[in-house]
Amino acid sequence: MTTELNLMGKKAKQAERILRTASDKDKETALLKIADALIARTGEILEANEKDRKAAVENGMSESLLDRLLLTEDRIKDMADGVKAVSNWPDPVGKVIEEYDRPNGMHLKKVSVPIGVIGVIFEARPNVTSDCAALCIRAGNTVILRGGKEAFNSNNAITNVMRDALAESALPEDCVQLVQDIDRKTAREMMNLTEYLDVLIPRGGSGLIRTVVENAQVPVIETGAGNCHVYVDKDADIDMAANIIFNAKTQRPSVCNAAEKLLIHKDIADKALPAIAEKLSEKAVELRGDEAARAIDSDMKAAQDEDWSTEYGELIMGVKIVDSVEEAIDHIEHYSTHHSDCIITNDAAAAEKFIAGIDSAAVYHNVSTRFTDGGEFGLGAEIGISTQKLHARGPMGVNQLVTHKYVITGTGQVR
Amino acid sequence: MTTELNLMGKKAKQAERILRTASDKDKETALLKIADALIARTGEILEANEKDRKAAVENGMSESLLDRLLLTEDRIKDMADGVKAVSNWPDPVGKVIEEYDRPNGMHLKKVSVPIGVIGVIFEARPNVTSDCAALCIRAGNTVILRGGKEAFNSNNAITNVMRDALAESALPEDCVQLVQDIDRKTAREMMNLTEYLDVLIPRGGSGLIRTVVENAQVPVIETGAGNCHVYVDKDADIDMAANIIFNAKTQRPSVCNAAEKLLIHKDIADKALPAIAEKLSEKAVELRGDEAARAIDSDMKAAQDEDWSTEYGELIMGVKIVDSVEEAIDHIEHYSTHHSDCIITNDAAAAEKFIAGIDSAAVYHNVSTRFTDGGEFGLGAEIGISTQKLHARGPMGVNQLVTHKYVITGTGQVR
Repeated sequence: MTTELNLMGKKAKQAERILRTASDKDKETALLKIADALIARTGEILEANEKDRKAAVENGMSESLLDRLLLTEDRIKDMADGVKAVSNWPDPVGKVIEEYDRPNGMHLKKVSVPIGVIGVIFEARPNVTSDCAALCIRAGNTVILRGGKEAFNSNNAITNVMRDALAESALPEDCVQLVQDIDRKTAREMMNLTEYLDVLIPRGGSGLIRTVVENAQVPVIETGAGNCHVYVDKDADIDMAANIIFNAKTQRPSVCNAAEKLLIHKDIADKALPAIAEKLSEKAVELRGDEAARAIDSDMKAAQDEDWSTEYGELIMGVKIVDSVEEAIDHIEHYSTHHSDCIITNDAAAAEKFIAGIDSAAVYHNVSTRFTDGGEFGLGAEIGISTQKLHARGPMGVNQLVTHKYVITGTGQVR
Repeated sequence: MTTELNLMGKKAKQAERILRTASDKDKETALLKIADALIARTGEILEANEKDRKAAVENGMSESLLDRLLLTEDRIKDMADGVKAVSNWPDPVGKVIEEYDRPNGMHLKKVSVPIGVIGVIFEARPNVTSDCAALCIRAGNTVILRGGKEAFNSNNAITNVMRDALAESALPEDCVQLVQDIDRKTAREMMNLTEYLDVLIPRGGSGLIRTVVENAQVPVIETGAGNCHVYVDKDADIDMAANIIFNAKTQRPSVCNAAEKLLIHKDIADKALPAIAEKLSEKAVELRGDEAARAIDSDMKAAQDEDWSTEYGELIMGVKIVDSVEEAIDHIEHYSTHHSDCIITNDAAAAEKFIAGIDSAAVYHNVSTRFTDGGEFGLGAEIGISTQKLHARGPMGVNQLVTHKYVITGTGQVR
């Protein structure tokens, strides 16, 4: 049966065979053409976006989702700037990772190569279309994108602009394709397109990620779930703690590296909790505490069992008093999504214990969890933050979108 | 619902938290204790194996499968030697992969850490039990093993020996667990044990691998499928070609890096094919050719369409005449399982084209495909040969059984 997805897969694979050996310069030039075209054809993209937004308003979409959907001249300029920044990134393909001779005289080279065809399933924000396309192309991968239904016209306009720009470059236009038929059937098909897709990356809420993990046969990189903790040790600097927690919780509460839970050592809780609560009250953060926390701050709501595992994504924070760094580690290891967790302490031994005991992509000591981000880590723009253990863990930038192969040369060696 | 697998997962996770920070020495010593115990308790293991073999004979198991199931004193000594070799491998945990400061003064360290809990589903050979356990423990991972029903008594005896040895070491005995209830239900449960398993590795035939890929929610490393090609270019040395092909096809036909297909450039086919066919006839290899090949060697059976995608695992080889290196690349890219593919040529340009065009874990030039193997690559013993693009590609030894985390230290940095 030849379906839309099958055809797209075939085209993506064909394009990938050309892109795989494209030069650094060709990839850079193609991305710059895309950036220019996004600016030049801003009007067309805004028109399509207007269509999506009208339909969304009619369907009663919430203000915050409408804002995610919205494109403006400035936002399109940001998208173009993002593509330009990626175009400047050094080519991660063709690097010799290791090279050595074996006793029988054969020579081994481990070389970085593109992954191949990458699928991305994402939700509302249309800028993801150009972000993901640029990152994939920079690393020599073709991409099949599937955005949300409500942003289809915007995504399609952006994709058309990119494909036209590619057609005028040395790279095939099929480096970027957008799934046209947005329903459950094509989503399932995409998750099981093992013949063509080398990896599938879901970008969006936990519901989307769960669905992909549960249903995909294509290898998945799980991204984005972040139930992040900050633990205030008994030897913490309380001012530093209040500042870090305020930043980690409130600077952008909807993102995956925002802090969701606050653990405080019992010996410092009497002083630390009121100071932190006062600071958080500046942004009206709702605190939900265990009994011990509420004994100190009786204004606090009572935390329920499910609070400890919830990623709020809002100005809400769970608060728990613990007896020791060990109890903090146990709690975090039990409830964390293993994204980003932090200890605040001036005690080197406690920090060391925490760092060794916490099995998360990023473990912080006296730094806000908000830094788990490709740009902040110096890895460039990212396609997502991996919370699984295979391949890349933490921010996945251009350098994480490659794999390797072994090239073995010899003179007739047999075994 | 507390099932067997859930309990095992919980225990494996608890043990992993201890193993994660175990010293190099503790891991080495524990593995040496396991090796000694395998030798000391050989009798007990052989008894259990005898039980399995009796039942297998009663069930009419084939001679070749019975041989795979068979343990002898020598084979158990080999298992113990394998565990010893792994114990000597340098600890891959705790290596600083990268380390740098960011402009805001925070310090980043990317450090290698164990993956966590590894699940392995495997078939007949009982030696896999100790091989996998040793590799996992050396890299700081706990393992849940599920072998075939027909080898259960053997696997269970080996596991008990290992657990007893662990109990006398600094590591928890739950570093190694064997699934006791071997049915479809527990297999499915294991594939979906996302709460506890960090990765699942199927080791066995293509049926098993397919089932795991299709049903697992746990991240899978696909291993082992090998429809490997040797392409004889027009500028090949015919003697070298015959030697390499003979070795790649016949040295151990059942393994995944054995050659299955022979492509020959039309300009050399008249001379090369008869020479190669003669050499292969020494081991009575059955050739199945396309029309052009049969025009040269009329003794050959006709290849069917499905031959080109079949991994025989036996002394059978598909033969096709091609017009160019490009046609060879196209054919291989279409039919290969992207495990190991080879070009034989003295023309550097053709070799370069082939190496760039073939997207396989190992691409060979004038070397037998049989070398795709952890030991032969100098990576030590392997848990499998990955044919997917994520994480590790090619042989997965101890060094490939780790992931990394970022450790960020600072002085109160906020964003």
